Amino acid sequence: MATQGQVITCKAAVAYEPNKPLVIEDVQVAPPQAGEVRIKIFFTALCHTDAYTWSGKDPEGLFPCILGHEAAGIVESVGEGVTEVQPGDHVIPCYQAECRECKFCKSGKTNLCGKVRAATGAGVMMNDRKSRFSINGKPIYHFMGTSTFSQFTVVHDVSVAKIDPQAPLDKVSLLGCGVPTGLGAVWNTAKVEPGAIVAIFGLGTVGLAVAEGAKSAGASRIIGVDIDSKRFDVAKNFGVTEFVNPKDYDKPIQQVLVDVTDGGVDYSFECIGNVSVMRAALECCHKGWGTSVIIGVAASGQEISTRPFQLVTGRVWKGTAFGGFKSRSQVPWLVDKYMYV
Amino acid sequence: MATQGQVITCKAAVAYEPNKPLVIEDVQVAPPQAGEVRIKIFFTALCHTDAYTWSGKDPEGLFPCILGHEAAGIVESVGEGVTEVQPGDHVIPCYQAECRECKFCKSGKTNLCGKVRAATGAGVMMNDRKSRFSINGKPIYHFMGTSTFSQFTVVHDVSVAKIDPQAPLDKVSLLGCGVPTGLGAVWNTAKVEPGAIVAIFGLGTVGLAVAEGAKSAGASRIIGVDIDSKRFDVAKNFGVTEFVNPKDYDKPIQQVLVDVTDGGVDYSFECIGNVSVMRAALECCHKGWGTSVIIGVAASGQEISTRPFQLVTGRVWKGTAFGGFKSRSQVPWLVDKYMYV
Repeated sequence: MATQGQVITCKAAVAYEPNKPLVIEDVQVAPPQAGEVRIKIFFTALCHTDAYTWSGKDPEGLFPCILGHEAAGIVESVGEGVTEVQPGDHVIPCYQAECRECKFCKSGKTNLCGKVRAATGAGVMMNDRKSRFSINGKPIYHFMGTSTFSQFTVVHDVSVAKIDPQAPLDKVSLLGCGVPTGLGAVWNTAKVEPGAIVAIFGLGTVGLAVAEGAKSAGASRIIGVDIDSKRFDVAKNFGVTEFVNPKDYDKPIQQVLVDVTDGGVDYSFECIGNVSVMRAALECCHKGWGTSVIIGVAASGQEISTRPFQLVTGRVWKGTAFGGFKSRSQVPWLVDKYMYV
Repeated sequence: MATQGQVITCKAAVAYEPNKPLVIEDVQVAPPQAGEVRIKIFFTALCHTDAYTWSGKDPEGLFPCILGHEAAGIVESVGEGVTEVQPGDHVIPCYQAECRECKFCKSGKTNLCGKVRAATGAGVMMNDRKSRFSINGKPIYHFMGTSTFSQFTVVHDVSVAKIDPQAPLDKVSLLGCGVPTGLGAVWNTAKVEPGAIVAIFGLGTVGLAVAEGAKSAGASRIIGVDIDSKRFDVAKNFGVTEFVNPKDYDKPIQQVLVDVTDGGVDYSFECIGNVSVMRAALECCHKGWGTSVIIGVAASGQEISTRPFQLVTGRVWKGTAFGGFKSRSQVPWLVDKYMYV
């Protein structure tokens, strides 16, 4: 392309300060260096994690920055040594990298690749520990290694999933975060089996994806828990079979769920980020085997608690990030699944 | 036997009040009713859980009672309908029953049989909700469904493991609690695999059994953690390869372990019952896959805490009771393993 090797000036939504409106600015996007990919973003979604960092409550939040991490686009140019994608490839930028070389990737036990994490956590690129974004020479931090609230972004090559070019980019942008997180929590982390009873705390995008995953896994009952009863109608379409609003009860919600399930649920999922709800999600699990998966991101400094007896009597407390999916390997598979299965 | 159907008067150590010396008394032990077994106890060990209830800190502790739950003996007589053991059988009384009929036993997911729990928790037998122990007509409560600090005891038939009559009862009495708890935590709950790095917090009987289990599972490093350095010499004989005394460090013990293992251990086991140590045991686990198993019983009302980020980044928090072993089915196998393998 004509822009290859050139600085591109484009529009981006810049977060200058916590909790202040984003500002649409002309930003300069430097060309990708070795091992980097510059992507033209066509669609980006807004996730709670963007809002969390924007709010200023994320102690690791850096400003000014360009937020956004759930998106889809087309590769504009690639840096030296990049072999797995080329200009014109349709891609989803992945905040969770997959290098296939580090201790984590090779473990076979986790998707939490560590290769570029130190750089992305510091809002810069690994190569030179600098940002590729600037406004009149002043650097703007990257966010989560993706920064998709920009018409062009630069990401590490280990963070790019190449997808079917037939896939509608507006739809599959959601496979950059929320939907895989929910599906994977069910399929990879909890490994829900046919007939299981599932409780989902929080019926936002992630919670609905959990419901969809649980339905496809053959769960017999999928209990949605939310303080907004209006969400139940939509949730039904995603597989939720029963709805419980904690506001309708005087007793703790974990007790309500234990009562309606003859001892507790087989699997629960916390899709909110509230540490009290995380406790309830664990404690509504069945003695002997109930497994609770934390998906929501709690505010900094907050802690989860329970009596150890809950675990000694067989409950298991887990968490998941990006649903345990290996991003570069499995996001393309998820796109295919959406398209053809 | 001549005593069958008769009340037996024998010696027992009675706990009249919390935290007061046990009193050796003549107690009357009623004959076993339907589904019950009367056992002559030959050897009994002392476990921390006995001391815990004796101390008065156990809110479910009932007095006066006969403590003891780690023992071996010979069946003296059986009640109506008891088919799996008969007088003369060598047995280990099991505080964790196994009925093979309840929801728990049939789940295939847990050893926590629920059949007699309501009765044993109340210090009585299920049949008539009464005790079989008395002194001059005054009932003395059962403890954990076993009460082995008595020359004769009565237990539910679902709580009796029939073992090889060649087994030395003094040795295999330990297979009634501590040793299976440690071995099973490794084999059944954590499922430690060859090459794994293991940390054990607390090198008492349970901790040493964890070490033995981890060694047999092929762990590459078994790190013993204890504030009493004298324990390391004995622990070496059970497979502990390295020793860490938290008192030797200024930084938190979880950080010490993360440092010496390049990121954390694969499995950790808390064998003390201290909620702060439980947290350290979780947090010394490797990001992405480290699993921590709580074995120790914490004092009533105490809670475990951590940042949910610990779980979201892949650590798993579990617990175990009786090492996940199905008591009637697997204690005899453990005895055989001790004898012949």
